[in-house]
Amino acid sequence: MKALFLCGGIGKRMSPFTEDKFLFKFLGETLLERQIERVIKAGTDKIIAVGNSSNITRIKELFGKFPHISFDTMVQEQPLGMANAVECAEEFLSDEPVLVLNPNDVFDTWAYQAILERHHNGSAVAYLMATEVSDYFPGGYLVANEKGELEQIVEKPEPGKEPSHLVNLVVHLHNQPRQFLRYIREKADRQRDDVYEQALEEMVRDGNKIEVVNYRGAWCPIKYPWHLLTAAAYFLAESEGAISKSAQISERAVLEGKVILADGVKILENAVIRGPAYIGEETIIGNNVLIRDHCHIGAHCVIGYGTEIKHSYIGDNCWFHKNFIGDSVIGNNCLLGAGTILANFRFDEAEVQVGEEKVGTGSNKFGAIIGDNCKIGINASILPGVKIGPNSIVGPNVCLTQNLAANKMLFAKAPEFERRQK
Amino acid sequence: MKALFLCGGIGKRMSPFTEDKFLFKFLGETLLERQIERVIKAGTDKIIAVGNSSNITRIKELFGKFPHISFDTMVQEQPLGMANAVECAEEFLSDEPVLVLNPNDVFDTWAYQAILERHHNGSAVAYLMATEVSDYFPGGYLVANEKGELEQIVEKPEPGKEPSHLVNLVVHLHNQPRQFLRYIREKADRQRDDVYEQALEEMVRDGNKIEVVNYRGAWCPIKYPWHLLTAAAYFLAESEGAISKSAQISERAVLEGKVILADGVKILENAVIRGPAYIGEETIIGNNVLIRDHCHIGAHCVIGYGTEIKHSYIGDNCWFHKNFIGDSVIGNNCLLGAGTILANFRFDEAEVQVGEEKVGTGSNKFGAIIGDNCKIGINASILPGVKIGPNSIVGPNVCLTQNLAANKMLFAKAPEFERRQK
Amino acid sequence: MKALFLCGGIGKRMSPFTEDKFLFKFLGETLLERQIERVIKAGTDKIIAVGNSSNITRIKELFGKFPHISFDTMVQEQPLGMANAVECAEEFLSDEPVLVLNPNDVFDTWAYQAILERHHNGSAVAYLMATEVSDYFPGGYLVANEKGELEQIVEKPEPGKEPSHLVNLVVHLHNQPRQFLRYIREKADRQRDDVYEQALEEMVRDGNKIEVVNYRGAWCPIKYPWHLLTAAAYFLAESEGAISKSAQISERAVLEGKVILADGVKILENAVIRGPAYIGEETIIGNNVLIRDHCHIGAHCVIGYGTEIKHSYIGDNCWFHKNFIGDSVIGNNCLLGAGTILANFRFDEAEVQVGEEKVGTGSNKFGAIIGDNCKIGINASILPGVKIGPNSIVGPNVCLTQNLAANKMLFAKAPEFERRQK
Repeated sequence: MKALFLCGGIGKRMSPFTEDKFLFKFLGETLLERQIERVIKAGTDKIIAVGNSSNITRIKELFGKFPHISFDTMVQEQPLGMANAVECAEEFLSDEPVLVLNPNDVFDTWAYQAILERHHNGSAVAYLMATEVSDYFPGGYLVANEKGELEQIVEKPEPGKEPSHLVNLVVHLHNQPRQFLRYIREKADRQRDDVYEQALEEMVRDGNKIEVVNYRGAWCPIKYPWHLLTAAAYFLAESEGAISKSAQISERAVLEGKVILADGVKILENAVIRGPAYIGEETIIGNNVLIRDHCHIGAHCVIGYGTEIKHSYIGDNCWFHKNFIGDSVIGNNCLLGAGTILANFRFDEAEVQVGEEKVGTGSNKFGAIIGDNCKIGINASILPGVKIGPNSIVGPNVCLTQNLAANKMLFAKAPEFERRQK
Repeated sequence: MKALFLCGGIGKRMSPFTEDKFLFKFLGETLLERQIERVIKAGTDKIIAVGNSSNITRIKELFGKFPHISFDTMVQEQPLGMANAVECAEEFLSDEPVLVLNPNDVFDTWAYQAILERHHNGSAVAYLMATEVSDYFPGGYLVANEKGELEQIVEKPEPGKEPSHLVNLVVHLHNQPRQFLRYIREKADRQRDDVYEQALEEMVRDGNKIEVVNYRGAWCPIKYPWHLLTAAAYFLAESEGAISKSAQISERAVLEGKVILADGVKILENAVIRGPAYIGEETIIGNNVLIRDHCHIGAHCVIGYGTEIKHSYIGDNCWFHKNFIGDSVIGNNCLLGAGTILANFRFDEAEVQVGEEKVGTGSNKFGAIIGDNCKIGINASILPGVKIGPNSIVGPNVCLTQNLAANKMLFAKAPEFERRQK
Repeated sequence: MKALFLCGGIGKRMSPFTEDKFLFKFLGETLLERQIERVIKAGTDKIIAVGNSSNITRIKELFGKFPHISFDTMVQEQPLGMANAVECAEEFLSDEPVLVLNPNDVFDTWAYQAILERHHNGSAVAYLMATEVSDYFPGGYLVANEKGELEQIVEKPEPGKEPSHLVNLVVHLHNQPRQFLRYIREKADRQRDDVYEQALEEMVRDGNKIEVVNYRGAWCPIKYPWHLLTAAAYFLAESEGAISKSAQISERAVLEGKVILADGVKILENAVIRGPAYIGEETIIGNNVLIRDHCHIGAHCVIGYGTEIKHSYIGDNCWFHKNFIGDSVIGNNCLLGAGTILANFRFDEAEVQVGEEKVGTGSNKFGAIIGDNCKIGINASILPGVKIGPNSIVGPNVCLTQNLAANKMLFAKAPEFERRQK
């Protein structure tokens, strides 16, 4: 069985992060690695990835970690959607079945096993995984008959106009990929952006049976930065606690609940880590630090004296010091000056919204989103929902109430002073 | 023996607090309950309270906690002073003796016992408790002859014009209350505001013996908010340390000296509480918190990570986080953002004064007075002696040097920024 | 053997400190005392000090600590240099040898022993200590022949024009001081400021042998305030760890490495001191405080709750509270409000420079220099390399990016506020 990962898309909603979503790390491994492990475990032995010119080298690198598996890669020159991505992989697709996968959505491992099992026992030309939603989700909706056979796909209906509760998850098994490719080429209107879904519908119209596999497990789609928090919590829940033998833990430190410490982690005196929590390689958790509520902290960080981190995703190489970081997402190589606070609660106690577009985070506790390579001075105040673009600098004592774009420096002009002789 | 509590007055000097002084809680009970307990202990079995239309319901509620005692209540329609309050209670006053009491002044329990004892062994028509002061106090002064019999009462003399050192304390035993009422009605000038005192003087003039009972115990009059600190310290001194069985105390926490923990209190790792200290029901004392120097903290508070509270009175339902709160009084339902500091010391090291009227607090260490339901953002700086009215909001990074009225929101206008391309 | 300390000079580069450099204390003793101890140990039994009118009383006081040694003092009326200083001491100089010493440079004890030994075994008229430098140092350079005999002295050559790598250290042994004085008077051009060096050169020119003693030990010249950090580290390295019997250390505190606690020190719960560190008499190290990386803290300080001090020299009687103090030098009697941070790292990660003259500190980690008797309000931010003059006050929430002169008060003007009704 082959698995085809569609890695060519570009996720603008992840701003200020520019990295592909499947390259974010969870518990020390990129999401793509974790996806590959899952499909291998489910029985796949050949992997194809369609990437883009920016990420294909990195994808190949990651494939190097699985020497016993056969890998093929292709570049999708332009982000022309799923159907185009499948076409890019054409030379690797025969008449053998293939799993088509979105690497940015996290599912339980058994999701892949379940769809493979249905295929082994069934006779459909394709199997589409779907999950029931109770609230509106901005995706594709599947309409199935009572036998679970696909009748229609409706891409991104307006809220309230959903034709069903079944959202299309991109875990698709195509039994005859070459036939599917023909439908893409010959039957779909290539001007539209739902070519993939049109092809599926046309197959149904021509009497091909496509089955909808109802999935009731975990599902973490990563669309916005705060979904990294959900995904991190998911992987923490799924994993066992594990303390590396090379971790050094002060006997005055407290680890409570499920804590994962990677190699070379140091936990200094009076630090408290309340699991579930992940601390990456060589990271130092300083004196009196408190880590709580599902924190995921990258490698080579220094979480300095007197810092509290609550329910946050922190990248690699970050340096903090006497900070409060709550319900926040911070990229790699960020530095926060002592006394700097990321507020995570509005005075009106309303849902925190992010960006000019005021996208709701779904929570009234949310802090900041800080891109890679940012520096923030001492005693700065960053308000809930603020986004800071990569490579930017926020000066000391600044109260940041609005987003800051990438590659900027923002300082408060020196206030007028009253100078008095004593 | 009956006790008559005069609960109808209005304490403007307690601003920004609007609650009656006898409704502030100490060690989990309102001051009025504590007063009732004291007079019961001293031998009283009937209690009358004259309240006003705003507090009478609450007073009746509190009376419900003493099912074995007989209670009567009356409403004083307007705040027309003590004599009027006694008149309001007329229907409950017979020719039996009655103790007339100000519920806002705290005395040792034996003060009530002492005056009752004098009454049992004596033959005077009334007994007035008094205490010697060395410094000026803005109250009434008693002049007694060498046998301790009242000769004159001088209400609020100017400083330096005190006729004696004996200040009148409103713990008065009237042996013939109906006679006293007649003097109020017939002999006093009702236009003046010292009707009660005039009636006493007229009784003396007519040959009635009124004895002055010299009291040398503790006396905490609650006039200004900072007197809550004195009263709290008094009740802490008077009580035994007590740790509720339902309190959860980390083995890494330290309790030193006399500490009272109410039910459901949680003390987290590395917190230190130096008694005397009271922590109310269900309150959480977070990691690394330091509580010291006579703190009184209400119920359902979260004293979050990295907060230091020194010598302060804190109401119920307050949330703090990485704050310093020193020598301050904070009402119910207040929220302080992380990094916010209440300064408690002036650069000139002078006495801290409060309000536009610059009322001296008597100490060079005093912080802020924050009314009920206030929210303060992150990294704010509140200067010594500042009052914040109830229901007000202070924005992040604000340096508050002046009082803020009730129901206001105060934000620093966004400063001018220097934006630079990197 | 006599030692002559030249204590009359004035060190302007130590601004904002006005005290003589040899009066700074290390491990509880002034530098001058430590120098005296060293020369006594090396075999000196008579000490002469040439001071100025401001410091002579203090010098005499310090001499009182060595009752078994003979001391003489003279006042140099004006700061006219080393030769003039030696002349001032003339009445105490006979034909016996004398060590001429700069009390502001720290050397290993054996430096003095080594030069004395050379003298005992040699026949030169004078011995000058020198050390090899690899980088430019703004001092005098010695040129010696292959036998180690002095040929020339070049005072403060321009960088790149050094005639040798041997820097003149003011540890000079004069075998015939009266002869040297004659050369000063008769052979040197008194208008120039290198009279002392001219006299030495003229002696050589007349056939007198002056030997250069090459010293390869420790050398800490104290020129700028940050050199106090180097000197403190030196004395810490040289000393044994020692905990006074009268020090009180919480069993929840941690002392790691070489720590010196003077009498009456108190270390409270959860404080951590990572040696080498010195804590002066009666100083209190509060709850959760972290002291690390070669700290030298004076006497009678209160290092309050939640403060971190890293690699800093702190004078006596300082009060800190919830501060971060990194790579900084702070004088006596300073008070920092809670939440105040001394930043120690520039956004551009460049070397921190100090003052209008932008003198490089040699490190990209350097904080502030704060003179004696300063007060800083709460939540202030002091940027790297800032100097604050003695007796000055910095208001709360001020972000100080520039130096502040002595005897000033600096407050941010109240910002414009948005006041809103709720």
